[in-house]
Amino acid sequence: MEIEPIGVISSCYKEKFGIPRQPALVPLGKASLIMAEGYQQQEMLDGLAEFSHIWLIFGFHATLEQGWKASVRPPRLGGNKRVGVFASRSMYRPNGLGLSVCKLDSISTRGDKVALQLSGVDMLDATPVYDIKPYLPYADCLPGAVGGYADKKPAIQYEVIFSALAKQQCLEKQQELGVDVMALIQQILQQDPRPAFHAGRYQKREYGMRLYDMNVRWCYLLSGEEKIRENKELVKVISLC
Amino acid sequence: MEIEPIGVISSCYKEKFGIPRQPALVPLGKASLIMAEGYQQQEMLDGLAEFSHIWLIFGFHATLEQGWKASVRPPRLGGNKRVGVFASRSMYRPNGLGLSVCKLDSISTRGDKVALQLSGVDMLDATPVYDIKPYLPYADCLPGAVGGYADKKPAIQYEVIFSALAKQQCLEKQQELGVDVMALIQQILQQDPRPAFHAGRYQKREYGMRLYDMNVRWCYLLSGEEKIRENKELVKVISLC
Repeated sequence: MEIEPIGVISSCYKEKFGIPRQPALVPLGKASLIMAEGYQQQEMLDGLAEFSHIWLIFGFHATLEQGWKASVRPPRLGGNKRVGVFASRSMYRPNGLGLSVCKLDSISTRGDKVALQLSGVDMLDATPVYDIKPYLPYADCLPGAVGGYADKKPAIQYEVIFSALAKQQCLEKQQELGVDVMALIQQILQQDPRPAFHAGRYQKREYGMRLYDMNVRWCYLLSGEEKIRENKELVKVISLC
Repeated sequence: MEIEPIGVISSCYKEKFGIPRQPALVPLGKASLIMAEGYQQQEMLDGLAEFSHIWLIFGFHATLEQGWKASVRPPRLGGNKRVGVFASRSMYRPNGLGLSVCKLDSISTRGDKVALQLSGVDMLDATPVYDIKPYLPYADCLPGAVGGYADKKPAIQYEVIFSALAKQQCLEKQQELGVDVMALIQQILQQDPRPAFHAGRYQKREYGMRLYDMNVRWCYLLSGEEKIRENKELVKVISLC
C-alpha cells in the first residue's frame, strides 16, 4: 500500500540524540504539525480542538534506509537484553511507522497554512505524518494494562544543574523562544539520553545535542566533583552554543 | 512510502455491519493475527507475551477504494453533525490506516505459522496489519485526557433478549466454537450497530450480520410487544441461520 504524508513536523528536536524515548517524558518538548498541500482545509480538522490529545502515525524517516532488525535492545533493559522488534517501540521496524500521543495545544491558520501546535512530542524535525486521530480516553486509556518490561515510567536518575553561563543563556533563549528552556533541558537530561552502555562511564566526555537553534553541551560529574544530592547522579549543563 | 502487511486478521467479524465502533466495547470479539511470510520468526515477538495489550496499525481494506471524505458524521453525534475526518476514527480517511488496541490472549506457533490470539477487536476479517506495538500504560494511558464529543463510553441503550430457537442455537454454537456466543451477541447488539438514523424507526425490519459462520438475525421491539425493562429498548435475537 502506498501512503503519503498529510503533514510534516517542525520540532524542537533537530537530531535523533536527545529525543525522549516516549513522548510523555518531556512535556515541554514542542512541535508544530504543518498540514501538507491537499490537507489544508480547515474542515478536515473541525471538532479536533475539543480533544486534549491526539495520536500521530508518522514515519521514522531518518532511520528508514537502515531497514529493520528482528530483535532490538531496548534502553529500558539496560541495552543488553534483546526483545523482538514487535515487543518494542524501536524505530528499526518493518514499515518504519511510529505512533505517539501528543498534547494538542492549538490549531492555527495563517493564510493557506494550517498547523497544529503540539507539546509532549518525541518526533524529530521534518518527520512525515500519515494520520491524525483523536485520543479517546474511554477506548485508548487502559489503566489495568500490563506493560511487560516497560510497565512503569522510568525512574529519574539524574539531577540536572547548570553552569552560570548556561543559566544566563537559557534566560536569553527563553525571551527569544517563549519557552522555558531551562525546564525543557532539565526534562530531557534527567532521562539520560545516552546509550545505556555509556552510563557510569565516559564521565569526562562532553555531550551535545541540537535543540531549536541551540547546541546544548553537558557532561556527567563524578561524585566528589560537586555535592551529589538525593542519591542522584549529576548532569551539568555547560553551555548553549 | 510503500508499506506491506506483516500479517492478516482472521476475525469473528465477517462483514462491516455489526463491528463495534471501538474495540473495548465488545471484549468477547475475537480474532487471530496470522503473521505473513517473512515475519514468521518467533524472535520478532520475543517478550511481547508479557504485555497484556497491543496496538495494531492496520488498513481499512474493505473501504479503501471508496477514498476519503474531509468531514464525517460520527455515530456518537447521532449521525447528523459533521466533524473533520481527523477529529474522527472514521475509516474513510487519507491513507486508510486504522489504529486499535486489543487484548493479547496468547501467541501460538504451529509448524511455520505464527499467530497472535486477540480479543476485544474491532477488525474485519482479512484486514491487513502493518505494525504491532506493545501498549505502554505509562505512556499510552492518559486518564486526564479530554475526549471531545466522544469523551465517555457510549451508554448502553438496549436490552438484548433471545428467542427460544436463538437460545438453543447459541448453546450449540458455543460447544462448537468454545466461545460464549450468547454473551458475544449481547455485547454487539447492546451497542446498536444500526446507522444512527435507523434508531426509533424500522422496528418492523429484520436485521442480520455475519458472525463466525453464523447469520445472526434480530429485530427491534415496539414497547407493548414485550415488557420493556429498565427503560431500555428491546432487541430480540430471532435466530442464527
